[in-house]
Amino acid sequence: MLRTALLLATLACVLLPAQQPAPLDPGIRTVVQVAIVTKNIEASAQRWASILGMEIPKVSTTRPGEEVKVQFRGKPSSGQAKLAFFKLGQVVLELIEPVGGDTSWKQYLDEHGEGVQHLGFQVQDLDQAIANAEKSGMPVLHRGRYDKDNGDYVYIDSGKALGVTLEFLHSDPPKK
Amino acid sequence: MLRTALLLATLACVLLPAQQPAPLDPGIRTVVQVAIVTKNIEASAQRWASILGMEIPKVSTTRPGEEVKVQFRGKPSSGQAKLAFFKLGQVVLELIEPVGGDTSWKQYLDEHGEGVQHLGFQVQDLDQAIANAEKSGMPVLHRGRYDKDNGDYVYIDSGKALGVTLEFLHSDPPKK
Repeated sequence: MLRTALLLATLACVLLPAQQPAPLDPGIRTVVQVAIVTKNIEASAQRWASILGMEIPKVSTTRPGEEVKVQFRGKPSSGQAKLAFFKLGQVVLELIEPVGGDTSWKQYLDEHGEGVQHLGFQVQDLDQAIANAEKSGMPVLHRGRYDKDNGDYVYIDSGKALGVTLEFLHSDPPKK
Repeated sequence: MLRTALLLATLACVLLPAQQPAPLDPGIRTVVQVAIVTKNIEASAQRWASILGMEIPKVSTTRPGEEVKVQFRGKPSSGQAKLAFFKLGQVVLELIEPVGGDTSWKQYLDEHGEGVQHLGFQVQDLDQAIANAEKSGMPVLHRGRYDKDNGDYVYIDSGKALGVTLEFLHSDPPKK
């Protein structure tokens, strides 16, 4: 009996994969947005529409930074952006042209020129996601409310560590 | 009778949306890959795993460029890359560390430093997709066969026009 148990235990060690510690799930595993900062959103939108074979999307402008509580590095900012979107399956391709005051969009364009500035993730628990990023040495860079004032976007200062800025998107719970 | 027909025609003009010309569909509407070029893939993979709460992925090295028919700007290249992948829903986040000869990965790292180098699209008709890109002034930059020699990847020189390199991915049809 003991011999059988030992044999089974040995077999289990050989055949079963080593147990990994359960990974910490901060709930940010699905990319929903890829965002490109551009100097001229109308020209970019036209070029993307042509290569994708899609209609040229409408360009909108966000409300003034003060109205949607924009903060850049912890300070209030008047920064705005012109936006256009292409739906590409699960992912939205977002084009952004910075307008006015300090934002991560303007900073990226000044430092890098046109390119992919951020990847956006829908998060379940915004405070937890921010705390996890801060624990990894990546503080909040820029944040604000959605234009319809029904959720938050938070950019994480992850450009140096990860090669791209992370954006956490979090909608308010439905109002009762 | 005529009056009814005219009324119906008028109603149709008012109620039905204006007909748009059918957009050209080059079949590249779904992003499947977001790729970040890095100087040190092991360090990058560790940082991404930590922020995403996922296991650190295995790093592999592609076969020598000559074996997988790598071409950069139309000339054969010995270029290789170390690769690591994170599955994030529909999209795979790919980390790439260039190794050896000329590739779009090395060019991006030399010119921009670490960042999002390409967006990958699975395409139905590779020749058509390349022809469409060329018609828009974006020629092939870099191409090769998948490491298992069962498909092609083709990078389009779209960095200046679109802010990011496009990658077309096309698997060979199943062998009979």
